[in-house]
Amino acid sequence: MVKVVICGASGRMGQTLGRMVHESDDLELVGGINLKPSSFFGAEIVEAKDADALLKRTKADVVIDFTIASAVVGNVQVAARNNCALIIGTTGISPAQRAEMEKAILGHVPAVITTNFSIGVAIFQQLVRESARLLKDYDIELIEAHHRNKKDAPSGTAKTLLQIIEEEAGTREKLYGREGMTERKNEIGVHVIRGGDIVGDHKVMYSKNFETIELSHRAYDRSVFASGALRAARWVVGKKPGIYDMNDVLGLKK
Amino acid sequence: MVKVVICGASGRMGQTLGRMVHESDDLELVGGINLKPSSFFGAEIVEAKDADALLKRTKADVVIDFTIASAVVGNVQVAARNNCALIIGTTGISPAQRAEMEKAILGHVPAVITTNFSIGVAIFQQLVRESARLLKDYDIELIEAHHRNKKDAPSGTAKTLLQIIEEEAGTREKLYGREGMTERKNEIGVHVIRGGDIVGDHKVMYSKNFETIELSHRAYDRSVFASGALRAARWVVGKKPGIYDMNDVLGLKK
Amino acid sequence: MVKVVICGASGRMGQTLGRMVHESDDLELVGGINLKPSSFFGAEIVEAKDADALLKRTKADVVIDFTIASAVVGNVQVAARNNCALIIGTTGISPAQRAEMEKAILGHVPAVITTNFSIGVAIFQQLVRESARLLKDYDIELIEAHHRNKKDAPSGTAKTLLQIIEEEAGTREKLYGREGMTERKNEIGVHVIRGGDIVGDHKVMYSKNFETIELSHRAYDRSVFASGALRAARWVVGKKPGIYDMNDVLGLKK
Amino acid sequence: MVKVVICGASGRMGQTLGRMVHESDDLELVGGINLKPSSFFGAEIVEAKDADALLKRTKADVVIDFTIASAVVGNVQVAARNNCALIIGTTGISPAQRAEMEKAILGHVPAVITTNFSIGVAIFQQLVRESARLLKDYDIELIEAHHRNKKDAPSGTAKTLLQIIEEEAGTREKLYGREGMTERKNEIGVHVIRGGDIVGDHKVMYSKNFETIELSHRAYDRSVFASGALRAARWVVGKKPGIYDMNDVLGLKK
Repeated sequence: MVKVVICGASGRMGQTLGRMVHESDDLELVGGINLKPSSFFGAEIVEAKDADALLKRTKADVVIDFTIASAVVGNVQVAARNNCALIIGTTGISPAQRAEMEKAILGHVPAVITTNFSIGVAIFQQLVRESARLLKDYDIELIEAHHRNKKDAPSGTAKTLLQIIEEEAGTREKLYGREGMTERKNEIGVHVIRGGDIVGDHKVMYSKNFETIELSHRAYDRSVFASGALRAARWVVGKKPGIYDMNDVLGLKK
Repeated sequence: MVKVVICGASGRMGQTLGRMVHESDDLELVGGINLKPSSFFGAEIVEAKDADALLKRTKADVVIDFTIASAVVGNVQVAARNNCALIIGTTGISPAQRAEMEKAILGHVPAVITTNFSIGVAIFQQLVRESARLLKDYDIELIEAHHRNKKDAPSGTAKTLLQIIEEEAGTREKLYGREGMTERKNEIGVHVIRGGDIVGDHKVMYSKNFETIELSHRAYDRSVFASGALRAARWVVGKKPGIYDMNDVLGLKK
Repeated sequence: MVKVVICGASGRMGQTLGRMVHESDDLELVGGINLKPSSFFGAEIVEAKDADALLKRTKADVVIDFTIASAVVGNVQVAARNNCALIIGTTGISPAQRAEMEKAILGHVPAVITTNFSIGVAIFQQLVRESARLLKDYDIELIEAHHRNKKDAPSGTAKTLLQIIEEEAGTREKLYGREGMTERKNEIGVHVIRGGDIVGDHKVMYSKNFETIELSHRAYDRSVFASGALRAARWVVGKKPGIYDMNDVLGLKK
Repeated sequence: MVKVVICGASGRMGQTLGRMVHESDDLELVGGINLKPSSFFGAEIVEAKDADALLKRTKADVVIDFTIASAVVGNVQVAARNNCALIIGTTGISPAQRAEMEKAILGHVPAVITTNFSIGVAIFQQLVRESARLLKDYDIELIEAHHRNKKDAPSGTAKTLLQIIEEEAGTREKLYGREGMTERKNEIGVHVIRGGDIVGDHKVMYSKNFETIELSHRAYDRSVFASGALRAARWVVGKKPGIYDMNDVLGLKK
């Protein structure tokens, strides 16, 4: 059983992670760290100042951190001191904070750091890379759909997909809509759908010569990110010290 | 057997119509009219100057016209004089030409005139009307896809769909793309996909409260327009003199 | 503000309803009823024996019941005695229990009773009815997809859709798969996809003459049922005594 | 300009090929071979007995054969004698006929032989292989759709896709439909949709952990096969003697 401690235990992501570890057969929830002591799923939540004692007492194997940039460095340091592997999904980390994290990690413990723990998205990106390489002379369009409250257009995942496509198929104009008299050239049409509570759909569409090939990814629930973090947690224990990403976890070539 | 004469017999649409009438069980191809005499599918093609004789000799029931604006008026006049019903798909007709056509038709013969003979599109529009009425408080997006050479964006059919949606769900801003920081309000997002040889897809998407309802229409071949014209030809014979459209042919309420 | 009391307050559906009422602008959560006293979202949860006092004290407008068959009759009786409207989503009710519920309701209070509170599904069924009426001479196929643990195939919603299609397009053979040498006749092909955590997709597909028309519904979250129950709650207050269903709530013709 | 001769020039596929070569910028239609002398797109069609003279006179670079098994061997022999490269899409060839063809080809001319010249399908198969390798622990379903007159279920392309999936993800039960009480295990669900004039859709669907990844291919027109044959024709000229397939033409790893 891999012993897991969760930082940010009372947050939305922390609660989801806690429940999933609790229900898992091969992971054991041995504690949480948060602003106030409490309990979750039968384990103890302690304050940051008691984190060191918690990690020692529980002999934790891995610490998962979905907190905020101002908290993550301290959490990383205490985990590394206790030889715990790390899974870090916290975002908004500054270069200085990143440097401190690396100093604590490198040479001491293995850590997976990424802003997207979805396993499906990581594999989907791999497939999009392969398709862009093979279909570079097709007309390419990208369509993504999210809930009505999403502000940025296109999504971060869509931006990553565009970057992957251009790495394989060459740099192209991106066209974020068509109206009036138009002439399709070599651009990538990017279509941003917003409505209701759509969790997150991405589709890449290649057309040429009376054929259309599509690759699509759909998320039904934000728990996909928790799933991916736990897969990373199972993987990271016992690895050599260093910083890894989801491609390492999934064994995908880069 | 309904006896059919086709104007514009040597054109792309004329050839498709000729073949489909020839292969039909209940329609008989008795002749064609075009610039030069020739033959098609065993029937005779005559010049316009011999159209009157052709219609008399073959006792044609219906004349189908997919020609050009400068030719259609003469064809309508000769058909009406010979008591032939009319199916007219010619586009670009001026108001003056339309007036002359109406003068020849009204009180004399029945005629179906439309720019879109697709049966499926007519029914699809009916379903979109019903959905817009029932789902007016959902977020609405329209996505259409056509081949890379199509110039106008969005398609004429998409414009008609937008008009139908607004008649039922109220006038809204149309947004032809999203990029940067956005905030969804009550607009209709309109997404124009262009690539390869896509014949014609239209989709209306309604989202709210973790549910999405979609209605979509796909055409696989331009022969859908010929199919619709022949359905109109079967329907129009024996109707009272007057001008009809596809909703009449299909018995759809307007 | 419509004052709401929830029976089964500690259950999964009760919690979802409680949170949504709590976050609503026009509904007020004034109490809950459950096996043990507790609190939720700032309101009091009382035992069934104290329900009468709770309804009197809070002057509740509407009681929502997602409990079990053995509890619902008592809840209905106490609500009706206190002139509270009723929203009932409890399933597995026996004919005898139904009779007791009707005795308490009819002539006294308005009640919405249904096993499917999804607003989208109710409207989708209406659209499928219309499409089946208009497209009865098309080839019809039904495709549904649910998570890997769903046992019954096809889904209850799919069965209702098949019934609606046959009411409009005529009774047909249902074919639940094709393999080997086949010949399509007038059957409805029914395709049951099972995989992962798909919440619930239903699609009806009509094909003929190089055209395909599709209508589809997708649910992203089981909260759609809670949403529908709250819409019913807003609607039912002030209606004449009687038993209603979602078509009444939504103003759909039957 | 690559000089092209087409065997089976008067057939449906021969006519499509002839028109496309005629309209091409880098291919030249120099003749056809068929049962009766005739002409097509400005080139001469000769009988098989005059094929040798035709190839000599026109200095043809490549011979394309979409005929029947009883004709193809003779065509291959005359082409090889005249140092013409070969593109062969004829099906139903017996092992004895195949042996004779190989004897004529090997050591003498390059030839592309395949039963599926669609470029998109070849690439799609490559992508499905990659996806099956990466997603072998997902629930896999395959959905294909064709016109109402297609007899075999599933399609030949679907069978090839199943074989590719099982090569990468392991052998599994194939389930061609679900009805009644079911329990999903490790099977591949195969769903065969038949309706209208659908040209050919194939979709592979992977689901797990609230995510679904789909890869799909759609053909809009049978001209995709002609397109692929012409791409092979451009590629094959100047290659070393030997027998090639579409993966060679497209530079896909096998």
